[in-house]
Amino acid sequence: MGLIGLITDFGLEDEYVGVMKAVILGRAPQATIVDVCHGVDPQDVLQAAYVLEAARRYFPAGSLHVVVVDPGVGTERAILIVEAGGQRFLAPDNGVLSFVLEPAFHPRCRILEPAAVTSGPVSATFHGRDLIAPAAGLLANGLDPEALGPEIPASKARRLEGLRPERTPEGALAGRVIHIDRFGNLITNIAAEDLPAGGAGVRIEAGGVRLEGLHRTYAEVPSGGLIALVGSRWLIEIAAAGDHAANRTGIEKGAPVLVEIRRGEPAR
Amino acid sequence: MGLIGLITDFGLEDEYVGVMKAVILGRAPQATIVDVCHGVDPQDVLQAAYVLEAARRYFPAGSLHVVVVDPGVGTERAILIVEAGGQRFLAPDNGVLSFVLEPAFHPRCRILEPAAVTSGPVSATFHGRDLIAPAAGLLANGLDPEALGPEIPASKARRLEGLRPERTPEGALAGRVIHIDRFGNLITNIAAEDLPAGGAGVRIEAGGVRLEGLHRTYAEVPSGGLIALVGSRWLIEIAAAGDHAANRTGIEKGAPVLVEIRRGEPAR
Amino acid sequence: MGLIGLITDFGLEDEYVGVMKAVILGRAPQATIVDVCHGVDPQDVLQAAYVLEAARRYFPAGSLHVVVVDPGVGTERAILIVEAGGQRFLAPDNGVLSFVLEPAFHPRCRILEPAAVTSGPVSATFHGRDLIAPAAGLLANGLDPEALGPEIPASKARRLEGLRPERTPEGALAGRVIHIDRFGNLITNIAAEDLPAGGAGVRIEAGGVRLEGLHRTYAEVPSGGLIALVGSRWLIEIAAAGDHAANRTGIEKGAPVLVEIRRGEPAR
Repeated sequence: MGLIGLITDFGLEDEYVGVMKAVILGRAPQATIVDVCHGVDPQDVLQAAYVLEAARRYFPAGSLHVVVVDPGVGTERAILIVEAGGQRFLAPDNGVLSFVLEPAFHPRCRILEPAAVTSGPVSATFHGRDLIAPAAGLLANGLDPEALGPEIPASKARRLEGLRPERTPEGALAGRVIHIDRFGNLITNIAAEDLPAGGAGVRIEAGGVRLEGLHRTYAEVPSGGLIALVGSRWLIEIAAAGDHAANRTGIEKGAPVLVEIRRGEPAR
Repeated sequence: MGLIGLITDFGLEDEYVGVMKAVILGRAPQATIVDVCHGVDPQDVLQAAYVLEAARRYFPAGSLHVVVVDPGVGTERAILIVEAGGQRFLAPDNGVLSFVLEPAFHPRCRILEPAAVTSGPVSATFHGRDLIAPAAGLLANGLDPEALGPEIPASKARRLEGLRPERTPEGALAGRVIHIDRFGNLITNIAAEDLPAGGAGVRIEAGGVRLEGLHRTYAEVPSGGLIALVGSRWLIEIAAAGDHAANRTGIEKGAPVLVEIRRGEPAR
Repeated sequence: MGLIGLITDFGLEDEYVGVMKAVILGRAPQATIVDVCHGVDPQDVLQAAYVLEAARRYFPAGSLHVVVVDPGVGTERAILIVEAGGQRFLAPDNGVLSFVLEPAFHPRCRILEPAAVTSGPVSATFHGRDLIAPAAGLLANGLDPEALGPEIPASKARRLEGLRPERTPEGALAGRVIHIDRFGNLITNIAAEDLPAGGAGVRIEAGGVRLEGLHRTYAEVPSGGLIALVGSRWLIEIAAAGDHAANRTGIEKGAPVLVEIRRGEPAR
């Protein structure tokens, strides 16, 4: 049957997430909801897109991902229902679904019709509760997405820019820090698969820090040592063994990261 | 069957919430628990009352709401079991159930007998785990509330003062900021239904800020602009578009808010 | 059937916990997962051991406890599957299971064979997702632990030192503060059962603070008053009524605590 994954920027200090769950479960009592992350920085659509990308591949086929990071709530921006890669996605049309809209996933897009999910009052500031959660409950309960709104070409849905690193004229990858996690690891948008296997001959630069090659684990170097490695999102991270790399280096979210690939040189 | 909603001031840094859930599910394995909010400020009974009021209407009929914000834990204060408005409520008798005790909900009140729910040790500092969670599990498992303790008149249960705004001699509403949410929105205790539809001719004052009329969405004004609007709790909020209103204005929780209603004047 | 309890140091700001749950539920769709605590200080194995000890006794028989606090992730440290006291435990072999490995629980230990749970890629930095969660799902789905790896003598599993207080030559108990909870209570590793019933003739010293006897509840003394009492973990705590004891006293996690027991003196 699949799970319902929830990603929001609501935090857990308020009742917003709990209320959305009550609405979903009120319509789909047998559903299982998984809190993927509610700690997205307020209105940071890019961060949410990456969280979804990190999480979705670990959900079973048939799962429904609900993403509510919605700076345009109450405006004319649409709410999308996307079927892609054997899963479903419900989110505002603000680019947060950029990754799953890629053609490889054969996305099918619909626009949610409010009247299809509720006849009650709709708060102009909480479509998550009044439109998206009811839609999620109906879908989880087996309703065909067709009943929720008209199909549009996937190419009409909004995409974010700057998701992936760029290739410089010299052949390096120019990316950036997209997230600092709880442990202080600096997560970049440069994927392991963009580098030679094992990171042979790779040099990473960010905020004045220069690191040679990739390590495999945090425990490989003395405590406090700065390393680059392939993190659990399969992206390049800068970490400090047993320490908080962001505090250690002063590097902030959004900082540019450059990866030079000197092919042919021996691995570290 | 309904859901079990949980509201506490335990936070999520410790095991307290998880242990309560284990106790509930140990007695009612088929129950579905929804974390409404565990970020109530420590021992802030008023805040918890408002969270419950914001959440309960989105839960299906038959739901059970468990509220553990309990400055008097271990003292002689009673634990209440309330049936009201088609739902059930379990909480210390400290006013946290004030809203659902209103006559319109036809509340029926009982006092939990500890011996009806446990024969084990009862921690003097954690009735949530040792008395309230077992009671919740038994209720969710179908036990009649009658089996848990004697009925008392609902009028005997404690109510909080100052829940609602007061009407000034000039006809304005004098309320206050009851909560600052994750986004920095200043949530007041003044309900949209107390104002003319759409907020026509309304002036809001708080902490030296004066706002004319109500907006509909955060996105209606330029970034950083201060507005008043009807928030998702259907209460008047002061917000800063794309910004943190509390930080912007320096207004704190508890600050007085005055709403003048100049009927007859044109809407903004 | 039992529950699955989760203890990690992942926090809730990132997707790590949610992804583990998706993996578990992908293999055991009918399982019920309880978040015990994800706020363990990063890599604090001792704190996690105490959280598990505080929580496990409130879980029904047959429950599975999954603990991922794993400073050695990606190194040769083993992952343990332990059956003890009618419950099961999955965790890195770093001492976090010290309490349940005590002989009284008749522990049986196995070492997880990665090949028994996955044929997919294993991140060197997230065994929680790629090895422990799949194992948890398989166990929750009824797989015999025997299928997951070879048995080892429980005596070979790692234990932490300094878990319990020491007896001084004068007969006092020398322990320490092991945790400061959300309310600011200073939780020590000195158990109520190590003291005379009711704390008669007991004197507690920590960080220059000296307290006589044990109180029963926070509400027993005037607001702000410092007291020692038996907390909900059945351990001695230092608390400030209606206040934050850690902030009040400046006492930090790890600080030594001395309890003198002057038997024969009258109780406070």
